[in-house]
Amino acid sequence: MAKIAVLGYGVVGSGTVEVFYRNKENLEKKAGEQLDIKYILDVRDFPDSPYADKFVKDFNVILNDPEVSVVSEVIGGIKPAYDFVKSALLAGKSVVTSNKELVAAKGAELLKIAKEKNVNFFFEASVGGGIPIIKPIHTCLEANEIDDIAGILNGTTNFILTKMIRDGMGFDEALKTAQELGYAERNPAADVEGTDACRKICILASLVFGKHVYPESVHTEGITKVTLEDVEYIDSYDAKIKLIGCAKRSEGDKIFIGVFPAVIRNESQLSGVNDVFNAILVRGDATGDVVFYGKGAGKLPTASAVVSDIVSAVKHAGTSRSLTWKDSEQSFVRPFEEFRCANYIRLCADNIKAAKDKAGEIFGDKIEFLSSKKQHDNELAFITDVMTEKETLNACEKLSENAKILGRIRVLDY
Amino acid sequence: MAKIAVLGYGVVGSGTVEVFYRNKENLEKKAGEQLDIKYILDVRDFPDSPYADKFVKDFNVILNDPEVSVVSEVIGGIKPAYDFVKSALLAGKSVVTSNKELVAAKGAELLKIAKEKNVNFFFEASVGGGIPIIKPIHTCLEANEIDDIAGILNGTTNFILTKMIRDGMGFDEALKTAQELGYAERNPAADVEGTDACRKICILASLVFGKHVYPESVHTEGITKVTLEDVEYIDSYDAKIKLIGCAKRSEGDKIFIGVFPAVIRNESQLSGVNDVFNAILVRGDATGDVVFYGKGAGKLPTASAVVSDIVSAVKHAGTSRSLTWKDSEQSFVRPFEEFRCANYIRLCADNIKAAKDKAGEIFGDKIEFLSSKKQHDNELAFITDVMTEKETLNACEKLSENAKILGRIRVLDY
Repeated sequence: MAKIAVLGYGVVGSGTVEVFYRNKENLEKKAGEQLDIKYILDVRDFPDSPYADKFVKDFNVILNDPEVSVVSEVIGGIKPAYDFVKSALLAGKSVVTSNKELVAAKGAELLKIAKEKNVNFFFEASVGGGIPIIKPIHTCLEANEIDDIAGILNGTTNFILTKMIRDGMGFDEALKTAQELGYAERNPAADVEGTDACRKICILASLVFGKHVYPESVHTEGITKVTLEDVEYIDSYDAKIKLIGCAKRSEGDKIFIGVFPAVIRNESQLSGVNDVFNAILVRGDATGDVVFYGKGAGKLPTASAVVSDIVSAVKHAGTSRSLTWKDSEQSFVRPFEEFRCANYIRLCADNIKAAKDKAGEIFGDKIEFLSSKKQHDNELAFITDVMTEKETLNACEKLSENAKILGRIRVLDY
Repeated sequence: MAKIAVLGYGVVGSGTVEVFYRNKENLEKKAGEQLDIKYILDVRDFPDSPYADKFVKDFNVILNDPEVSVVSEVIGGIKPAYDFVKSALLAGKSVVTSNKELVAAKGAELLKIAKEKNVNFFFEASVGGGIPIIKPIHTCLEANEIDDIAGILNGTTNFILTKMIRDGMGFDEALKTAQELGYAERNPAADVEGTDACRKICILASLVFGKHVYPESVHTEGITKVTLEDVEYIDSYDAKIKLIGCAKRSEGDKIFIGVFPAVIRNESQLSGVNDVFNAILVRGDATGDVVFYGKGAGKLPTASAVVSDIVSAVKHAGTSRSLTWKDSEQSFVRPFEEFRCANYIRLCADNIKAAKDKAGEIFGDKIEFLSSKKQHDNELAFITDVMTEKETLNACEKLSENAKILGRIRVLDY
């Protein structure tokens, strides 16, 4: 029998215990042996829980119990999760986690320890909640050279953008609605500033490109500057604004990586991903574009991924060869100013005719002017040709002599 | 070193060899050992191939070579593929296949032999081409009770329907275009009559519900009766017509299963799947709806799935516990006349007012009348409430007293 410990009895932890006992019989069939949760670690008391006898407050009880072979860390954050996970791995226990912050910050180190100790370190739930993505990348797409991965990785911001696009709500009102519905925290910074999506694209990029990508090296922008005017102009371009995390292979074994609001054409599978749903697009050289879609957060979806990892950890003793990556130098990530894409630009000017001429002069023949149903007389919006970030910034500076730039959103071709 | 044999050097076979050698080094890293293709079986000669020395015409050479541990069957059809696969498994070799006809007809038997011989029988490429779906279901979603699975499983029919919907092409013209582009065979029956989609939903249902579902027990309709008029009315309902294969858990451990054109609302992830793309929706009790999207056919996507299975077969000696199902009795599938759904119905009548009154009388309050941009004066289209197949047929018969029924398409809520 495999004995499991669950660290943390918050939303995901209680979900994990619930999903585990609901499907126990079936899970044992899949794992090929009997399973039980022996401990639940939490600082709080749960005297009325049906699992009251499993609660412990001291992690050492779990660490020193040789019967526990799998530890499920669902506390979140770096402290004390990092210490718990590291010491569990060092003690020869497999660890599964939903903790994206931990994996994004310490993945390479923890995977290395897992390898040395010949145990598993799984984290399917850390990206895309209940969407299978980590395992499919390393067990289904290995016949592909993956050059590009991109996704809508944060449900809260996708909900806010959906409200803006569908219901014409302003950002502040949409955020308030998300908070009222429990989709956004009272302090929404980690979501709306892109931090959460950044951690997730770091994990995906590390997995796909084989070297750890640290959040600090990722160009990250949130959605706070997106306006309803942008939404309307971009609608006229048959496109939608989505917060995208993306990573692309570039020359010299380096990558581009970023998180920012992006213009996504309506024919893309990513444009139809609404509300709190997430989707991840993987571009393989053999299989083409593959998209994984589902609920990116929530108690039961996330718990379902955690429990699935528990079963895998029991079933496959020893480290998975393909689920690993090395540590990296800063230079693995190319400077973002060299990133190339088209751009949506919105501006206002007293002399709109002169500004339009100037834009045409600066951005060349391929500029495409947009119209909005609620177009203001002194406003102008257009899509540029593909150019580097640096060229775009320079061009915008030049344009500022004749106009005030109100918004700029990168255009991506997924 | 693991030695592999590829049976069949047609489109998928040559793609398999191509993808294998293109990514060999990487695949060996994933598999944890050296790999090589020792034999390619084909009745034809390929003297100019770089792999000319690997070709054999006699399967027994492969069967009797103890060095060959993995056989990749990409011939298609039952004969001789079934004999080859069965004898390879009996000889203790793992088999991977892209052959949906074989898996749908003989899956339970072949999985049983694989289990007895403690070897693998993998068939990721048999459903959804390069889309990871078989492995994610049995290794990522095991913490879920899956009650429902549905998909756009055939690229050819989806291409034809997309042409009808987007470009207003009639069925015949759209089929001709598909044939010219190489998406449809000269004899398109297996695609347009739903046979191909039927085999794929059989495989998915067998995997999800644990018992073999034979194609003969599946209610199967193709898309040949779908008209442009239907497309237009359904557009006014904010929906699209898609050929759907679906299987649902029902009472008493039985299932409903069918393949037929269906009305899918635009908010569904399945409605935005266009051209030759496929998508499969899995509805889990914990994780909710998860959708897998990508290229459902084609040389390299399919080969990519075959090669991935080869690596898995090398990596995991022994049968996968969760990738299996039992044989079943016919009674496992509930009679289709008990299947419940809403319906789109289109009719014409000399006295359209009387027909409308009659329809309201027969189908009750919840009937919803549709309008089309090109509506004919003597035509009527509407959506019924949810009812059983039997009730629908009876109602249509009654309605036929006052009208001629021109079309009926089931409405599904994915």
